[in-house]
Amino acid sequence: MTDSVQNQQPWRQRLANWIERPRAQFTIMILILINAVVLGLETSSEIMQQWGTLLMTLDTLILGVFVIEISLRFIAHGWRLLKDPWGLFDTIVIAIALVPASGPLAVLRALRVLRVLRLIALVPSMKIVVQSLLASLPGMGSIVALLGLVFYVAAVIATQLFGQAFPEWFGTLGASLFSLFQIMTLESWSMGIVRPVMEVYPLAWLYFVPFILIATFMMLNLFIAVIVDAIQNQRERVAASKAGTEGQHSLEDAAKSHPHTSLSGVNQELLLLEVRELRKELASLRSTMAK
Amino acid sequence: MTDSVQNQQPWRQRLANWIERPRAQFTIMILILINAVVLGLETSSEIMQQWGTLLMTLDTLILGVFVIEISLRFIAHGWRLLKDPWGLFDTIVIAIALVPASGPLAVLRALRVLRVLRLIALVPSMKIVVQSLLASLPGMGSIVALLGLVFYVAAVIATQLFGQAFPEWFGTLGASLFSLFQIMTLESWSMGIVRPVMEVYPLAWLYFVPFILIATFMMLNLFIAVIVDAIQNQRERVAASKAGTEGQHSLEDAAKSHPHTSLSGVNQELLLLEVRELRKELASLRSTMAK
Amino acid sequence: MTDSVQNQQPWRQRLANWIERPRAQFTIMILILINAVVLGLETSSEIMQQWGTLLMTLDTLILGVFVIEISLRFIAHGWRLLKDPWGLFDTIVIAIALVPASGPLAVLRALRVLRVLRLIALVPSMKIVVQSLLASLPGMGSIVALLGLVFYVAAVIATQLFGQAFPEWFGTLGASLFSLFQIMTLESWSMGIVRPVMEVYPLAWLYFVPFILIATFMMLNLFIAVIVDAIQNQRERVAASKAGTEGQHSLEDAAKSHPHTSLSGVNQELLLLEVRELRKELASLRSTMAK
Amino acid sequence: MTDSVQNQQPWRQRLANWIERPRAQFTIMILILINAVVLGLETSSEIMQQWGTLLMTLDTLILGVFVIEISLRFIAHGWRLLKDPWGLFDTIVIAIALVPASGPLAVLRALRVLRVLRLIALVPSMKIVVQSLLASLPGMGSIVALLGLVFYVAAVIATQLFGQAFPEWFGTLGASLFSLFQIMTLESWSMGIVRPVMEVYPLAWLYFVPFILIATFMMLNLFIAVIVDAIQNQRERVAASKAGTEGQHSLEDAAKSHPHTSLSGVNQELLLLEVRELRKELASLRSTMAK
Repeated sequence: MTDSVQNQQPWRQRLANWIERPRAQFTIMILILINAVVLGLETSSEIMQQWGTLLMTLDTLILGVFVIEISLRFIAHGWRLLKDPWGLFDTIVIAIALVPASGPLAVLRALRVLRVLRLIALVPSMKIVVQSLLASLPGMGSIVALLGLVFYVAAVIATQLFGQAFPEWFGTLGASLFSLFQIMTLESWSMGIVRPVMEVYPLAWLYFVPFILIATFMMLNLFIAVIVDAIQNQRERVAASKAGTEGQHSLEDAAKSHPHTSLSGVNQELLLLEVRELRKELASLRSTMAK
Repeated sequence: MTDSVQNQQPWRQRLANWIERPRAQFTIMILILINAVVLGLETSSEIMQQWGTLLMTLDTLILGVFVIEISLRFIAHGWRLLKDPWGLFDTIVIAIALVPASGPLAVLRALRVLRVLRLIALVPSMKIVVQSLLASLPGMGSIVALLGLVFYVAAVIATQLFGQAFPEWFGTLGASLFSLFQIMTLESWSMGIVRPVMEVYPLAWLYFVPFILIATFMMLNLFIAVIVDAIQNQRERVAASKAGTEGQHSLEDAAKSHPHTSLSGVNQELLLLEVRELRKELASLRSTMAK
Repeated sequence: MTDSVQNQQPWRQRLANWIERPRAQFTIMILILINAVVLGLETSSEIMQQWGTLLMTLDTLILGVFVIEISLRFIAHGWRLLKDPWGLFDTIVIAIALVPASGPLAVLRALRVLRVLRLIALVPSMKIVVQSLLASLPGMGSIVALLGLVFYVAAVIATQLFGQAFPEWFGTLGASLFSLFQIMTLESWSMGIVRPVMEVYPLAWLYFVPFILIATFMMLNLFIAVIVDAIQNQRERVAASKAGTEGQHSLEDAAKSHPHTSLSGVNQELLLLEVRELRKELASLRSTMAK
Repeated sequence: MTDSVQNQQPWRQRLANWIERPRAQFTIMILILINAVVLGLETSSEIMQQWGTLLMTLDTLILGVFVIEISLRFIAHGWRLLKDPWGLFDTIVIAIALVPASGPLAVLRALRVLRVLRLIALVPSMKIVVQSLLASLPGMGSIVALLGLVFYVAAVIATQLFGQAFPEWFGTLGASLFSLFQIMTLESWSMGIVRPVMEVYPLAWLYFVPFILIATFMMLNLFIAVIVDAIQNQRERVAASKAGTEGQHSLEDAAKSHPHTSLSGVNQELLLLEVRELRKELASLRSTMAK
């Protein structure tokens, strides 16, 4: 954020610093927590009957503060705020609260509570967890795409085979996709769906059992990919932090030129270099003596 | 594929190159995607009533292109095409569409959509995932065989013990196998099956609880075998790519002669060799001086 | 415990030693086991009719021994006993048995059996398992907090969207939290809850499917965090025990100054130091000869 | 087996060799497979009506061969056969078939099929899997004992709290243990058990939700312990096989004296020893020169 602001007028930067100073962030955090409690209390009709006006007022006041805060951040950073995913999230979440939630948009009223998730960006440890969760998504890309393809093909087959007899579960492509998702989670797959289907089509297990095996096997491999990836990242992080603390050694260039190698790799290359230096010295010693 | 063609007439090879050039592959990919959408739309009877003729025509046209493409590949490669698993899959999937889907073969109509899975062979990242999934199957062989044996024995016992009283679940060997598979996935095992059985045979839990423990424990070990295998492969792949970039070192023969050792193993053997060379040199130096 | 007692009168320490000597601990362990059986037998009304008085008497006698034991430990250690988590647990568990279990406190009668858990503190292998389980909790902190936040937000939304139509499942914030917990465990999520909800709100899957994906993905990451952490700890423990047995080597200071490095790291630093010493010696040898 | 026989009369050993020679083992294996099919076919009443006599005769004949084989093995090895777990298993499984399966022992008829599991001992790859499964059990000991303790305590509490109102699920200690096992597998825990219980005791979730969290968390840790153990064993096996192929090196004693160290540990100790030898030689060289 800071480097995108450097070319602007100083007063803008001062404003950004003022909004993002720890004390302001802490105030926002407290307001989010109060807002979370208020929105939770609003779900109870009893409490609303007694304290409704107070809660609504509090909610509006806090929303007001959030609107002012996000406006100031827009003034400070301009439209660049929307390029930062956390800034974009804040903007959307506050915009939801400003849309008049009536008619078909009444559902938006329920989504006001999403603004409580702004807490994540303000608590560093939570922010790290979310970022590492999001970081593990790209590695899943290929398997997720494959899973999607398998689901689509399986849903088309299921709709054509069982759609007529079981319209509720396999009547449309959407219904089939939902039923297959349920079957993949193993929820009531047999007693709820496959046994009734097998009463009409006794060979239906030839379709469902392989689907379960393939889908759960792919899920297993998705899990393993994420686990292996996480262990690998963990090692590299350890290696990086270690390599950093070894900077005082004589051959630290070797370590620096291999920032992504694991700890033992770095140490071993240092060793190899040392031993080779040793051999050179010994060789020169020998030639000295030969004279 | 290419090296199996080298001994043939040049026009065959030219044909193979022409079909398999990126642009042709991309066209096939687009046609598969369009076909996927068409087959998806065909599952809706409403859309079929309005656009049925158009969709059927499109489907037939695309199938025609696929038939021409696979024929050209057969002309170019001959029957060797069927030795390549991906070529075999393409052939089967297109053959399904050509079989008249009537009478008892009506189910083949639903399987036409399997041709959408040809996409996997055309998208490299998906192809790698499928190949690595298939590659992890042989390592599971022994546990899967053992699981099959346990299932067979358990099904024979269940059929003899509970078959008379619960013909729907354990009446035949097939019914028992299906019910045990359901129980292994933990779907409605207690409320749906074991509690009703225990009302007739109060000691039935002596059979079912150990079965659940053994079956899920074996599944757990199957998972672990795959995870350990995947981590091992990951390491070897890292080691192999590392060993490749270390070819400029003096003792690279050692590294090359151990292509499957892990990174640290390779480095350490290099070190051992270096240190032993050092000792030899020192020994010869000593004998020189002793003279 | 022992070092907190050193500054006290000798008779207190002698008392502590006397209560905590192996034979006394073993007696307590046997009494706990007998108590476990007695409390188990008390759950059967048939056995209670015949042997009720005997069992109650045994229970009271054993409780008496426990009260005397904990009193002696209080005399020996004073209020410091409550600072040790195991001592606190013992005190609470025995206090429960002394509260008159009548009226609204009748539930406490059922909690008397918790005193059987005192066994954990007396069996070293079980104590280690529980302590390592508890030790893995802090590492989960951030993800658990995030999961709590997601649950709270999801429950507020569910209460507002579905509370009116399905008061049993989503009528209050508490009901929603319980239903979402059930959905996260995948128990009857579709057949039991989401399909009925979708009959009233056909788009409800837009809420539930993402919730299931996010919640189970976060659970998966929680598992992975714990696994990676456990593997890391395992390695460090191996390294620590190895470093301990290598104390007889000449450069053991290096090993000691890096108690938390892994085995290979320790060994490699020893090697680096050895090789550097070698170079220094060789250099001095050279300068000797140059003279 | 072989070394336990060496002190016996030669004819006994010749007999043992004759029964255990590959061809005899292969014949037994084929007979087991035929027996498996026969026992499978016997579960169908239709097939039994037509081929019953043939199948029964075949079964009796094969059993006869098995009885002769196990008798010969008893003659060859004596009662020592029962000390080998596989020999003990074979004996029990054949003994089951000889007990007259009538009256209360009719259940034994169903257990005849267990003799198909003898196959495991005859197929090396399956034998290894079963032995490694059994080998991972002791490592689970402490957690399983802890899980048992938690189950016992939870069952006593559940019986006292909910036994009166729900005798089917929590009426006796056994019923509670079964219900808690079902709840731990997450099968119908909410819709099937906890929601009905909560209609009578609205606060029952205070008992069940913590139980689910503790039980599944302990299962998770059981899994992790097995995974970490398996990865560790895998490494040690790799290390052992590596250490074996390095036997030709000069300092192989070091490797042999540390059979349980991991590969890199072995290599690094070899290195340390080599480097120390180097220093000694250099020191003696220096003293030679000083003269």
